[in-house]
Amino acid sequence: MDVTRDNFKEVLPIVTEAINAASFICIDGEFTGLSNGTYNVTAYDSPEDRYFKIHCNTENFLLLQFGMCTFCWNEELQKYKIQAFNFYIFPFRSSMQGVPDRIFSCQSSSLDFLTAQGFDFNKAFKKGIPFLHQNEESNVRSALEEKQVFRENAYKSPGKGSFHNPRNSSSFQSPMTKGSPTPITDQKTKDFTDGVIKQVQVFLEEETSDELVLEPCNSYLRKILFETLPRVFPDKILVEGRTDEQTYQRHIVVVRGASESIKKAREQLAREREEQELQDAIGFSVVIKLLSECQKLIVGHNMLLDLIYTIRQFFCPLPPCLEDFKSLVQCVFPNLLDTKLMGSMLPFKDLLTTTALGEMNTRLREAPFKPSDVDIPGKYNVATAETQNENLHEAAYDAFITGTAFLSMVNHLSSYQNSSKPNHVTSFTSLQNLTSPYINKIFLMRSHDIPYLNLAGADLTPSRDHVFYIEFPSSWKASDLRQLFSPLGQISISWINDIACFVGLYNKGQAKHVKSLMKSDAAEPCLFRITTYNEYKADSVSGFYSTHSQHRIWTKQNVHNNITASSGSTIPLSHSLSFTSGLQAASITGHSDVPASSNRKRSSTKEDNDFANSKKFFGEPKLKKQKSQEECAYDIENCNIEVVTNSPLHKADESKKESPNNLANLLSDSSFSENMKSKNSSTSDAPMFEVPNEW
Amino acid sequence: MDVTRDNFKEVLPIVTEAINAASFICIDGEFTGLSNGTYNVTAYDSPEDRYFKIHCNTENFLLLQFGMCTFCWNEELQKYKIQAFNFYIFPFRSSMQGVPDRIFSCQSSSLDFLTAQGFDFNKAFKKGIPFLHQNEESNVRSALEEKQVFRENAYKSPGKGSFHNPRNSSSFQSPMTKGSPTPITDQKTKDFTDGVIKQVQVFLEEETSDELVLEPCNSYLRKILFETLPRVFPDKILVEGRTDEQTYQRHIVVVRGASESIKKAREQLAREREEQELQDAIGFSVVIKLLSECQKLIVGHNMLLDLIYTIRQFFCPLPPCLEDFKSLVQCVFPNLLDTKLMGSMLPFKDLLTTTALGEMNTRLREAPFKPSDVDIPGKYNVATAETQNENLHEAAYDAFITGTAFLSMVNHLSSYQNSSKPNHVTSFTSLQNLTSPYINKIFLMRSHDIPYLNLAGADLTPSRDHVFYIEFPSSWKASDLRQLFSPLGQISISWINDIACFVGLYNKGQAKHVKSLMKSDAAEPCLFRITTYNEYKADSVSGFYSTHSQHRIWTKQNVHNNITASSGSTIPLSHSLSFTSGLQAASITGHSDVPASSNRKRSSTKEDNDFANSKKFFGEPKLKKQKSQEECAYDIENCNIEVVTNSPLHKADESKKESPNNLANLLSDSSFSENMKSKNSSTSDAPMFEVPNEW
Repeated sequence: MDVTRDNFKEVLPIVTEAINAASFICIDGEFTGLSNGTYNVTAYDSPEDRYFKIHCNTENFLLLQFGMCTFCWNEELQKYKIQAFNFYIFPFRSSMQGVPDRIFSCQSSSLDFLTAQGFDFNKAFKKGIPFLHQNEESNVRSALEEKQVFRENAYKSPGKGSFHNPRNSSSFQSPMTKGSPTPITDQKTKDFTDGVIKQVQVFLEEETSDELVLEPCNSYLRKILFETLPRVFPDKILVEGRTDEQTYQRHIVVVRGASESIKKAREQLAREREEQELQDAIGFSVVIKLLSECQKLIVGHNMLLDLIYTIRQFFCPLPPCLEDFKSLVQCVFPNLLDTKLMGSMLPFKDLLTTTALGEMNTRLREAPFKPSDVDIPGKYNVATAETQNENLHEAAYDAFITGTAFLSMVNHLSSYQNSSKPNHVTSFTSLQNLTSPYINKIFLMRSHDIPYLNLAGADLTPSRDHVFYIEFPSSWKASDLRQLFSPLGQISISWINDIACFVGLYNKGQAKHVKSLMKSDAAEPCLFRITTYNEYKADSVSGFYSTHSQHRIWTKQNVHNNITASSGSTIPLSHSLSFTSGLQAASITGHSDVPASSNRKRSSTKEDNDFANSKKFFGEPKLKKQKSQEECAYDIENCNIEVVTNSPLHKADESKKESPNNLANLLSDSSFSENMKSKNSSTSDAPMFEVPNEW
Repeated sequence: MDVTRDNFKEVLPIVTEAINAASFICIDGEFTGLSNGTYNVTAYDSPEDRYFKIHCNTENFLLLQFGMCTFCWNEELQKYKIQAFNFYIFPFRSSMQGVPDRIFSCQSSSLDFLTAQGFDFNKAFKKGIPFLHQNEESNVRSALEEKQVFRENAYKSPGKGSFHNPRNSSSFQSPMTKGSPTPITDQKTKDFTDGVIKQVQVFLEEETSDELVLEPCNSYLRKILFETLPRVFPDKILVEGRTDEQTYQRHIVVVRGASESIKKAREQLAREREEQELQDAIGFSVVIKLLSECQKLIVGHNMLLDLIYTIRQFFCPLPPCLEDFKSLVQCVFPNLLDTKLMGSMLPFKDLLTTTALGEMNTRLREAPFKPSDVDIPGKYNVATAETQNENLHEAAYDAFITGTAFLSMVNHLSSYQNSSKPNHVTSFTSLQNLTSPYINKIFLMRSHDIPYLNLAGADLTPSRDHVFYIEFPSSWKASDLRQLFSPLGQISISWINDIACFVGLYNKGQAKHVKSLMKSDAAEPCLFRITTYNEYKADSVSGFYSTHSQHRIWTKQNVHNNITASSGSTIPLSHSLSFTSGLQAASITGHSDVPASSNRKRSSTKEDNDFANSKKFFGEPKLKKQKSQEECAYDIENCNIEVVTNSPLHKADESKKESPNNLANLLSDSSFSENMKSKNSSTSDAPMFEVPNEW
């Protein structure tokens, strides 16, 4: 069901009931952008770094559509009742004091992507439901209360308050002003005012209605009327301002009578109207509050961005540090499950070829999986692949298939325990034993060795002894780095910026030989600097924040200085063009002049199985010099090779185990373990249900 | 005519012809925002300040629709042929290196406004024509040329170049790579590769077509194919990458044969495709280039923002200082005319009740004006007011009625010279004598005494002896300031920020008594500081930039320090709550706590005659503390009282005359002058065609 400003009030009780009845709830968001390109996300970000980068990269974008799909187990019918809501969100203006006229960012490629999916921007901008985060709400409320108190005081001693704060009363009623009125200096204004006075006289004589709504006029003329009319008709009328809900034009309304009882009644009316306006301004935030308060299992697919946008837009600004973010999320949504992570973990890792939502869901409807029996919401018929493609990336639809995928995975897990009777998900607690290994772990994209953020505890700290931090001249390309490391075999490159990257060795045993690279070229001065990942992290005192927040950019000059410092000898500038020997100077010079606007930066995509598509999400380049897009694609390939092929190229480092919330409880079920082995021979010699160090 | 990506190529020759044939050209733009609220625009901004503020306030917004209407005098038919083009603009993605994925800002209220006018965002985002400004274009072009040169070299010695820079060739063709290929470590990739090899074998055997387009696959698999296929089929095939124009998916294309002639033909094809891609990326910028090169009269209505957005988006980033901006505009559009300014100047000032485009155009179709005979473009029939309201704020329509309004004003001017035969606007030179007083003067909104930016010369420097700069505690409201100045009569307040404003005295003669206000309250410590406008400007060394660019915000502490410094005595903090004596402390304290998100800031609206409407353009508040929206409206009234009522409240200061490009040439025609007097008695005792000091 599409929910807009038009039907929101009407649908809200249905939404509330659906949330209250739900066994679990799936969510998904659509955004106006994914990355402003401030930082490059790398394969070796620490979880803190990654959070900080995403936090900065996504600032100012808007969540424009919120999909919510509630799944409620019906014991009688033995199936799930599903309700899907597709909320259009837009920070619609309000005449309330304290409601901001928001400035938000859009990323061309994201709008492009949404357009291609058939997203209706006209509907969103015209009919989107507004929102306030909690601070804003309390600001607006206190301003409103203050205004109401002032108005009340103004009634008690109209002369006193009104002079000192004439503005605060004008929206409702203007008690007679004691100060000198605005001088009317021109004939037009005089004529206009006289005309209105005649109108009011007729209105008072005719006695056919209680109020006279004047034609809209500009604020100067309104001010004149506010001052003039009570003087001309003392104790006979009240003068109010009113905003037309359709046209947003301001009208003056003349109300017959000025008795205490009329004033009280008008005040009552005004308060009711104001409370309604406040509720309208809070808008969609109410739904998120309900979602938070219900404390139910919230399921999403690749949901880190959904969480970030949802909390920032409807709850509060985000803290800069990961630990605070974790506390915040635990407080707002204490029970989360990410189906992309679930699908990437055992036993599903070996049964699924992809964790892209659409394809994963299709796969989860085939053997050995058994889709749950669900009442498909009206417009979503997943029977055909066409329907799925049509609806994919509509937030509610994505939430819906996230739920069906989740149920299929739960069914599969329970089949190990008791093949005859599937575990129905009736509530969060009912499936806690099955899903606990996946709870509050959020999929982390493009990380080589940290598959998830652990919201409820410490994050994994895999060994990065085979990872190195390299600084080099900005003219260097991937090929220069590969050439440099060629004695040690294949490498994966993860660009930090134009003059620094992480390099991971495929052959970890070669790590001890990296230092020799620095010496191997001793005849020539050293153009680069290599430090181990651990040294790098230790160096950058408070980690990422100190190093990256300054957008350190090397100029030719400081590249030079740096190299001088580390090698102890000066080098001519021409040498700094490229490391690679044997490369013709001409072609190198050419390439070192690649225009500044080319892209090395990459931002997050929701589906990472096809990185060609991810090109559309490249961030606005901010670096002084950048490598070509093609080089980017190449780097992406290398960074994500495991995800793409589902085959770990790194040898597992057995020294690391997952500490909190590990899958021991599932492992302890030996029959389960055996079932699993017999069903899926390809994993028979791999340890089951253990979080791998490589993903 | 609506012009989108779909018909742009087709329409471009028509556009070119229309521009070349035009007697004059009208333009209008629609934007995603008007002000991010960084600075408050004040009634006493210097032209430099104003430009700098608008420059900052509008950064990152997008021009989303460009209206262009060409007027061509047809001597034979004795009427104007009109062609109206409504260009939808959007920074559509491109696969070209160097084309940025733009991040742009939107202002809720602006989208809201456009939505209310029926703007089709879906059309804009889906079908908008892309653009590059000139730097971007040359970056993209040089990257492309470099790529082409590299590719050519790669043909000559395929082994050499390709190894060192494998990335740069992959988009066209992958010569055999000498380096070790990417290791294929998993069965799936092996199976996939074997499948493709079989496919290519069949393709080579069947000889039914020249190329085989493979199914899209991810970048890792494409890389494998790029490396594998040339090895498996040496000298038999070329392997190319190709992006599907519809789906943006990347395909591998296998081309039969690898002979030199085939390579050359493919290279030729590739270059043509790339040149077309480049032209597509440049897109709409071509039209602006044509507009600039034609050097014709460009007419707009209230066109400062149109100029700023157009130049920034399609030409180059804007310079921070006004003088440079003027040079730039003179270079890009040497002949400009702003109909809002023209309508605000004599003789029209006294004949028009408003300069809001729609209403002004309607008025200019009534006596004493004579609308020109024009061929109305298909969809725009201005015969009825309804049609006008329907189309108003569609960029091409606004451009169209700007032109008809302009022609009517020109007709009117020429009627003074020769009542029997109107002056037809056949070219810029043909009307130079009539319109020269208005040329290259751009209307300046919300300025009390500087009606326009003079692009071709020095700006007006009216006396501001009656204007004062005041600093005060942030708790102060307009009422406190009015109370302070009450001994000197009415004032107009122009907020700079929460703790500073300009105050203009209605009674200029009182200026000499302002100093006494500082002393009048000697018993109490002085909570405020008043300096003359001239002192203030002299103080802020390099003017606005030094004072404002730091967003100076007073805390209670530094308000305190400041006051101490100027009064020589310390004051208790509680005193700093309000200046106004007799105001209950409780109510003041309450108001001083007005939430931070309320709005004192205002941004520009295109029509300033109804400031109630302008509320929707309020900027995002950035100040620590701000006054209520109502207070804003009140301030706006006072700032703009003259514009609203068309009656100067200030007495004219006769000491200032307009210097360059003044209207002397029109004044010198005595018969004209007499005609004018007899026709419009209301202006008979005012000097004609003299730029007033008050607007």
